[in-house]
Amino acid sequence: MSGNASGNVMFDTIAIVGVGLIGGSLGMAVKTKGLAKRVVGIGRSEQKLMRAQILGAIDEYSLDFEHGAADADLIVICTPVSKVAPTLECMAPNLKAGAIITDVGSTKREIVEDASIVTPDACYFVGGHPMAGTENAGVENAFPDLFLGATYVITPTQDTDLSALGRVTAFADAIGAIVETMTPEQHDASVAIISHLPHALASALLQVAEDAQRESGKVFSLAAGSFRDLTRISDSMPELWRDISLSNSDSICAAITSMQEHLQEFKDALESRDEQKVLGFFEQGRQIRQTFLRLVR
Amino acid sequence: MSGNASGNVMFDTIAIVGVGLIGGSLGMAVKTKGLAKRVVGIGRSEQKLMRAQILGAIDEYSLDFEHGAADADLIVICTPVSKVAPTLECMAPNLKAGAIITDVGSTKREIVEDASIVTPDACYFVGGHPMAGTENAGVENAFPDLFLGATYVITPTQDTDLSALGRVTAFADAIGAIVETMTPEQHDASVAIISHLPHALASALLQVAEDAQRESGKVFSLAAGSFRDLTRISDSMPELWRDISLSNSDSICAAITSMQEHLQEFKDALESRDEQKVLGFFEQGRQIRQTFLRLVR
Repeated sequence: MSGNASGNVMFDTIAIVGVGLIGGSLGMAVKTKGLAKRVVGIGRSEQKLMRAQILGAIDEYSLDFEHGAADADLIVICTPVSKVAPTLECMAPNLKAGAIITDVGSTKREIVEDASIVTPDACYFVGGHPMAGTENAGVENAFPDLFLGATYVITPTQDTDLSALGRVTAFADAIGAIVETMTPEQHDASVAIISHLPHALASALLQVAEDAQRESGKVFSLAAGSFRDLTRISDSMPELWRDISLSNSDSICAAITSMQEHLQEFKDALESRDEQKVLGFFEQGRQIRQTFLRLVR
Repeated sequence: MSGNASGNVMFDTIAIVGVGLIGGSLGMAVKTKGLAKRVVGIGRSEQKLMRAQILGAIDEYSLDFEHGAADADLIVICTPVSKVAPTLECMAPNLKAGAIITDVGSTKREIVEDASIVTPDACYFVGGHPMAGTENAGVENAFPDLFLGATYVITPTQDTDLSALGRVTAFADAIGAIVETMTPEQHDASVAIISHLPHALASALLQVAEDAQRESGKVFSLAAGSFRDLTRISDSMPELWRDISLSNSDSICAAITSMQEHLQEFKDALESRDEQKVLGFFEQGRQIRQTFLRLVR
């Protein structure tokens, strides 16, 4: 039993592949709430897995991707998005019949499509995306309440097994998250706007600022709190954002095009000195934000 | 002497035109530090001026724009940007010889140009822009330390009187601000990027989100903290931002064009699946932000 709380066991063995901030927090939540008899961590770095074990995120670990999850009833793949399907493919031959696989990737359409190809016939894949903090990476920053009140998107398709879908949903619910169900396409279009476009905007804004700084040398000296806040998201790992962007490029390109069009409208209004349209541009933004704030409470 | 601290008197009488958050805080700072023997507030609403007097922002007030500042040695115009030059024009015939006029507008080129035309020959105009908080408007939110450590941009031109420039600089310094001197053009190009472009981005982003929300209905339900933070600046008054935008349209249009170009580069990289360029886009943003953070301390 390895010291797991004896709660409502939902799965005998849960395997977590990639035990960083998200994987580690998942393991801690599972063990704290007694949702599994055994939590196995799988990864490439023994040092990191040992740390995860010491921190109580997992009961045991394996460096063997091919066989490490052979006993698991639920496998949660917490690798970077570009590695989810390859990891599943590598594990596939040795998974047990009836095993449910889910992931925590920030994009879903590509992953769900690729996973449907490599998931063994006797197993079930259900795509997932817990939208929980990622600023401080690593299992050192993991904690069992990371998912409390967080939105956990689950993205079934027409082919998703309904029983597996129900069990993953119950699992997300049990760790304290609020489940939102939508198609992989809806998910990707939405996060392109909510998360990926803002990252691109922050990076582009910094580049605009640097171009001007090089010309006048006066830009950065005026940049106070709000500029700092707006560009904070650019501190994230570029490699992660490369993968996410490539994995959701259609939706991101569509979002950028829409952004360029709205900016163009504003520029046209300014150039023609159309006071009413310039006012309307800011009024619309303000109204939409008020609607949004009412919706999110 | 109306209870002003007896510090280093810099001006016998200071007139503050428009006693809101900025004007009120200026008055409080002046009175707390004893920088003037008398602070006169000028405005259109007697109710607001009475409140400013009760709150200790001014010693007395006048509703008479034409004559209210006749005794003043320093006049600080704290109206919206579109009203600075018209206000000065209205006061001009009755200003006393040697009076120094400054303003606190968020844009400078147009104001400094227009002011140079309407400033009487015997008076001196020096453009200024204290970059201090504006989220909660009104004298009710004013406080004497608003300018402590804030950047206070002063924008002389070739025609600016050096003695007047020195006195406005010393005044900004005395209220605790950090003075940055640059041309009106440098100021406007810089704030276009640091402040005006981010406002336009937030408003456009909200419009992109609403377009998508109308299509899929799933966007707002995924918008968590970071989206809320990024769009917070859209709560500001649309009328203010209309005026600011029109008063700095050249620089804002140039900044938007630069933004569109950087976004286009990123879109091209995504569409051609150029991993190196996509990575470079995020790496550049991250590096620029690190440089910027080192510069601002």
